[in-house]
Amino acid sequence: MTDIARITAAAARLKGNVRVTPLLNAPLLDQIAGRRVLVKAECLQLTGSFKARGGWSAISALAPDARDKGVIAYSSGNHAQGVAIAAARHGIPCVILMPSDAPEVKIANTRAYGAEVVLYDRGTEDRDAIGAGIAKARSLTLVKPYDDAEVIAGQGTVGLELASQAQEAGVAGADVLVCCGGGGLASGIALALEAMAPGFRVRTVEPEGFDDMARSLAAGTRLKNAAATGSICDAILTPMPGDLTFPILQRLAGPGLVVTDDQALHAMALAFTHLRIVLEPGGAVALAAALFAPNLGDTVIAVATGGNVDPATSAAALARFG
Amino acid sequence: MTDIARITAAAARLKGNVRVTPLLNAPLLDQIAGRRVLVKAECLQLTGSFKARGGWSAISALAPDARDKGVIAYSSGNHAQGVAIAAARHGIPCVILMPSDAPEVKIANTRAYGAEVVLYDRGTEDRDAIGAGIAKARSLTLVKPYDDAEVIAGQGTVGLELASQAQEAGVAGADVLVCCGGGGLASGIALALEAMAPGFRVRTVEPEGFDDMARSLAAGTRLKNAAATGSICDAILTPMPGDLTFPILQRLAGPGLVVTDDQALHAMALAFTHLRIVLEPGGAVALAAALFAPNLGDTVIAVATGGNVDPATSAAALARFG
Repeated sequence: MTDIARITAAAARLKGNVRVTPLLNAPLLDQIAGRRVLVKAECLQLTGSFKARGGWSAISALAPDARDKGVIAYSSGNHAQGVAIAAARHGIPCVILMPSDAPEVKIANTRAYGAEVVLYDRGTEDRDAIGAGIAKARSLTLVKPYDDAEVIAGQGTVGLELASQAQEAGVAGADVLVCCGGGGLASGIALALEAMAPGFRVRTVEPEGFDDMARSLAAGTRLKNAAATGSICDAILTPMPGDLTFPILQRLAGPGLVVTDDQALHAMALAFTHLRIVLEPGGAVALAAALFAPNLGDTVIAVATGGNVDPATSAAALARFG
Repeated sequence: MTDIARITAAAARLKGNVRVTPLLNAPLLDQIAGRRVLVKAECLQLTGSFKARGGWSAISALAPDARDKGVIAYSSGNHAQGVAIAAARHGIPCVILMPSDAPEVKIANTRAYGAEVVLYDRGTEDRDAIGAGIAKARSLTLVKPYDDAEVIAGQGTVGLELASQAQEAGVAGADVLVCCGGGGLASGIALALEAMAPGFRVRTVEPEGFDDMARSLAAGTRLKNAAATGSICDAILTPMPGDLTFPILQRLAGPGLVVTDDQALHAMALAFTHLRIVLEPGGAVALAAALFAPNLGDTVIAVATGGNVDPATSAAALARFG
């Protein structure tokens, strides 16, 4: 189980190995949003997303014997890179199973971090069977993307940082909007805020059509998405809320928010112009909600979770909304 | 005169009013450069460039009587925004003279920060005469973009930060590449490094055809550029090295470096993909030199000075080099 003790222990292991990311803001963004908007820029994290935290946390928490044999992970890209760099810096073998339609830059980066990338077809092949076979044959430990206590603890360190940075900026309370796939980041942040900044409340943000967390939170039970693909927000298209993450968010998070793909692209363009940061669509949905969602408070903090985007997608966002 | 005491005094006044910007890196950038490249991301500074430091330093150092009457500045954009936000937060009047062909985003932002923007035609009107008239009529103090001891001291705080961040990352010596217009930032950093990190040496970087500093350093005397416009690096097209800045750089900086506009665009695209930061062409020349210049050491630190760029320019960089 993840609790604040596990999160602060993860923070101690992460110190010096991942980056403290800045909390940014811009007067013109506040004008557009009609509220004060602070942006936790995890796109500036090592590997370009918060996943470097969970990857480091999980691998650094393994027993040395298991760790030395190596790790395996399944990921469309950001978790892959986070696990790959942590494995490389621990000097251990690392296999990453990636869908063959993942963004090119994510596949290239994962290889550059030293991982062995195995591609599979999302539509026709059974990822879990392929992964289990490789893991068994080579005695690798599976690092799950969100349903793992140490991964959640690692992502929770975003909440520790964000709370102290926001409090330093004079913010005593805020909605904390978090881009949400399986809910690892959102649940980790929610636990950190519960302990360190009780005036702050997590709200998950998902793309339209892939709002399994929002619907599950409303229904009080885990529900699946109807489709597996069909949004540009590739980083956060997970089938349903996690086993471990859902109960945490049910207890601590407010109602889930949903944005359109166009709003995500618009947020990407505004982040580019006013914050000078690069976001991927799935990493921009929280900022999109901060800018465009109705019925939020006077101050919101949006976690900009990742920036690994193909240049053509960014160029399209700039052409339409820049 | 600017010395380390004036820089540390400026740092004390700036604390909490401008951002500490991160020192970024990426394994894939190191591979491309063939050396270790650290990037001081001043594009993430308040207003999107390091100029927020000099603006705050100069205004906060004014005698209260003079300060209350207000300030005036001439700028193609980044200095304008730095002075405008500092003036707004001091609650004083601020007039900015900008060339009518400055990037739109810079003009819009300067107005959004609350300044009164007066446009003039770079080709036909006498900026200094217009500015002097307004300043006299309204008793405004002129905040110069680089030839001012307090402005240089404010920019020098980049050097203090960079030295301690690089030392924390285990770097004991490096070439520190700095985008150079009039030389305010380069000279401030050079003074800070002389005192705090003697293993670090400043190298100025300029666009081809506007290499007045490189030629002046080589000649031992201040030389002018042949043209006033004609590079995409609008932020750093100054006519000649400053009165105050040149002697400092002559004493402390290595030979100046020069890059092409295409190399600046290429560096913008690589910063986008690998660091997830947005740079303007003039803010990317130091990174361009870090990536593409021959005969540099094993470790270089590039100061990425600004990110206020029209979306079309970024899209062009991504289309060609992304």
